[in-house]
Amino acid sequence: MTPLVASVFLLLFSVTEIVSAGRDAIQGNLRLPSEASRFFQKIEDDGLEGTRWAVLVAGSRGFSNYRHQADVCHAYQLLKNGGLKDENIIVFMYDDIAFHEDNPRPGTIINHPDGTDVYKGVPKDYTGENASVENFIAAILGNKNDITGGSGKVVDSDPNDRIFIFYSGHGGPGVLEMPDHSHLFANQLIEVLNKKRATRTYKSLVFYLEACESGSIFEDLLPQGLNIYATTAANPVEDSWATYCPGHSPNFPPEYHTCLGDLYSVSWMEDTEKNNPVAETLQQQYERVKTRTMNGDYKYGSHVMQYGDTDRLGMGLLSVYLGAHLANDNYTFVDRHDDDSLPPPTGVVGQRDADLVYFWDKYLKAPKGSARKLEAQQQLVEIMSHGMHIDQSVKLIGKLLFGTERGPEILVSIRPAGQPLVDDWECLKEMVGTFETHCGKLNQYGMKYMRSFANMCNAGIRTEQLAEASTLACAGIHANV
Amino acid sequence: MTPLVASVFLLLFSVTEIVSAGRDAIQGNLRLPSEASRFFQKIEDDGLEGTRWAVLVAGSRGFSNYRHQADVCHAYQLLKNGGLKDENIIVFMYDDIAFHEDNPRPGTIINHPDGTDVYKGVPKDYTGENASVENFIAAILGNKNDITGGSGKVVDSDPNDRIFIFYSGHGGPGVLEMPDHSHLFANQLIEVLNKKRATRTYKSLVFYLEACESGSIFEDLLPQGLNIYATTAANPVEDSWATYCPGHSPNFPPEYHTCLGDLYSVSWMEDTEKNNPVAETLQQQYERVKTRTMNGDYKYGSHVMQYGDTDRLGMGLLSVYLGAHLANDNYTFVDRHDDDSLPPPTGVVGQRDADLVYFWDKYLKAPKGSARKLEAQQQLVEIMSHGMHIDQSVKLIGKLLFGTERGPEILVSIRPAGQPLVDDWECLKEMVGTFETHCGKLNQYGMKYMRSFANMCNAGIRTEQLAEASTLACAGIHANV
Repeated sequence: MTPLVASVFLLLFSVTEIVSAGRDAIQGNLRLPSEASRFFQKIEDDGLEGTRWAVLVAGSRGFSNYRHQADVCHAYQLLKNGGLKDENIIVFMYDDIAFHEDNPRPGTIINHPDGTDVYKGVPKDYTGENASVENFIAAILGNKNDITGGSGKVVDSDPNDRIFIFYSGHGGPGVLEMPDHSHLFANQLIEVLNKKRATRTYKSLVFYLEACESGSIFEDLLPQGLNIYATTAANPVEDSWATYCPGHSPNFPPEYHTCLGDLYSVSWMEDTEKNNPVAETLQQQYERVKTRTMNGDYKYGSHVMQYGDTDRLGMGLLSVYLGAHLANDNYTFVDRHDDDSLPPPTGVVGQRDADLVYFWDKYLKAPKGSARKLEAQQQLVEIMSHGMHIDQSVKLIGKLLFGTERGPEILVSIRPAGQPLVDDWECLKEMVGTFETHCGKLNQYGMKYMRSFANMCNAGIRTEQLAEASTLACAGIHANV
Repeated sequence: MTPLVASVFLLLFSVTEIVSAGRDAIQGNLRLPSEASRFFQKIEDDGLEGTRWAVLVAGSRGFSNYRHQADVCHAYQLLKNGGLKDENIIVFMYDDIAFHEDNPRPGTIINHPDGTDVYKGVPKDYTGENASVENFIAAILGNKNDITGGSGKVVDSDPNDRIFIFYSGHGGPGVLEMPDHSHLFANQLIEVLNKKRATRTYKSLVFYLEACESGSIFEDLLPQGLNIYATTAANPVEDSWATYCPGHSPNFPPEYHTCLGDLYSVSWMEDTEKNNPVAETLQQQYERVKTRTMNGDYKYGSHVMQYGDTDRLGMGLLSVYLGAHLANDNYTFVDRHDDDSLPPPTGVVGQRDADLVYFWDKYLKAPKGSARKLEAQQQLVEIMSHGMHIDQSVKLIGKLLFGTERGPEILVSIRPAGQPLVDDWECLKEMVGTFETHCGKLNQYGMKYMRSFANMCNAGIRTEQLAEASTLACAGIHANV
């Protein structure tokens, strides 16, 4: 295929987004960097009428969760390099990593063992407690009046604009956590997307989501026809995976102790960097990221999923959302594109264990008898003990509510396709609150039990019944610890 | 140097053991395997009048301590290959590793990530509860009548015989643990060695000892003139180190979860295999092992020490104790000897953390929600919690006995050179028993506090005082757990 023919294809994509040309047509033999560069520059100028917006969310805090903020900072650099302007990129991050006392390279964040700083220049729109569910919702909807604190930046978009949302953090069935430890439930998010659509303030929206059970946020919940294309790191019933962790490779910088990225997140970003976004469709990236994220045989990997208007939007180019800034004619994307191979399977740790990796590695490497060693040991034991307490409590509550035989089965049962996680989302929220009052906070680890609480709601259990069972199961436990 | 001249040197060594020739003379240019082989065969036939005996002890049990039995099995293969006969090698090991349900290669044991089986053929002299302090003492002294269970094999040696003893396991200041969890105190061992000497049933004895604080077993305790040469993995106040652990190298077999060796132990054995024992002296091996075991800058390594008649015996050849069987004329020791370089610094874990590595790695890799994962998690939390309980209890007891200011200092104080760990060893044993009655077993980890209990004895504290303080410090703790 000649560059000229390719340009026709690419223009078709950016205008109609309903082109049926497959990946082979796109992955043509564009071999002359200088030609290609001029061509792409043209695309960027002419191919898109509106503005590109991005909302980036790191859903956690703490050095043990380093990787989420690293993912999001990396995404910022990618978008910035793609030509998006700071005024159109809204970042939610707790911002406690770069200058954390445990950061071996103060003032920087890396997202790869050999990576360079991705922190520099990242806008501090919503940090600390301002990185909240409420501000996230208000930012997407463009409701400046509903914002509390922060930069006040919102997605002030027009009908022709494109919106890219990327979240990396901890989740559970039907729920995502924000850095202030508040929960964003799937129904809230879907409601926000519906509302945004109703305001007719975007042309299309792409949502990339990294969290455990992230498929549950969209599956049977995200309607068709909103012009939204979403992919998730995991299906609705599995963990997603952290990567670039201590011991995972010979070149891992041992002074970090913590995982530097998440498998799905680094996969889409490294894929974008390798395969120029002007030559790659969302669908193509989905396929590549899916293959890398399965990490061999799914034993230490997850099922990347896609939801929403996948057929219509999947053939659109990545550059429509991520931009495609080319610094100069020597940009080497063609050579990089030419090597279509994926990185080899990567060392990973389940997201729910990744914070433990940090405390473990810190414990192991700290000097014998040091305060640092004791502190890491205490935190490891505390988090693990709390996790076991949550496991035991939920199991016991299930038996109290449904009987010793049916209890364990009901807690983990998955509803048939077409039915959402829960019918009554308010019930789910109340159930979580009731449990936490008697048994302590679910925390990152405990979010995995959202499906159990949802199933209690679906089975008609009332919060009073859960309160009674929780009292019995968690007698002697201090509430809300 | 010609082979003829070398042979004169070597004969001198084996006869007089007081030769002052340095290592350069020994490390001659023996470059012809066939000549060398004939020569060594001659040495083995003629150079030694008596019999070579060996006592090998793996001091622990459990898959998390895999490495100690691996060290000892490896040593057996080395001695067997060196020409020692099974009737002269006495092995103490719990023998719960090779057929442990967690062993990914049932019926085998390896001592290196790329290693072959070292378990095959190992004599099962004293296994399980028969691998006791009493049998170990009786075996060294040749007292068949004092043996309970086991093969009944003892060191039935003559005045011209050489004895090699190798222990790998857990220790603490002044103490070594046996697989039945009984303690062998330094004074007992020294008494045994004195008794053995008194029976005039050996010409010289070499003791290689791997344990935390192993230097404390001999320092200021082992007299000169017993014709005993000892080296230890650590000085009297530091941990020794496990190696070949999960994540330490790309070729580590991930299904093992446990460390495969100890740094000092694999160092002397791999050094012996690399540098033919007929061409290497004890002193030369000590130097090489010391360098490798310091592992760079001692931050993740220990100080290998030597004790006893080092001047007289250090110039003796390794082969006098380990033998030097050469299978055939193609034996490539000359080439291997030619490369004098040490392996690069190795990944290590402090011996007191190495069992945790096993439970951690098992936890991390076990399937989500599996019984295996839960079990490993429980064990990790239990061992860590118990360790923290011991730490806190001893610290509190110190303050109760000596006051909040002086307590912490007295517990860790080290006596001046020339003074043994404790004056009254019976007091030390009673102190440990008293503490364990009120505060629970010290276990592997808690042996590190032997010096604290010794210092209580040295300060004139009576067991009744410790009992009172322990009762206060450990109120609510179930005794002997």
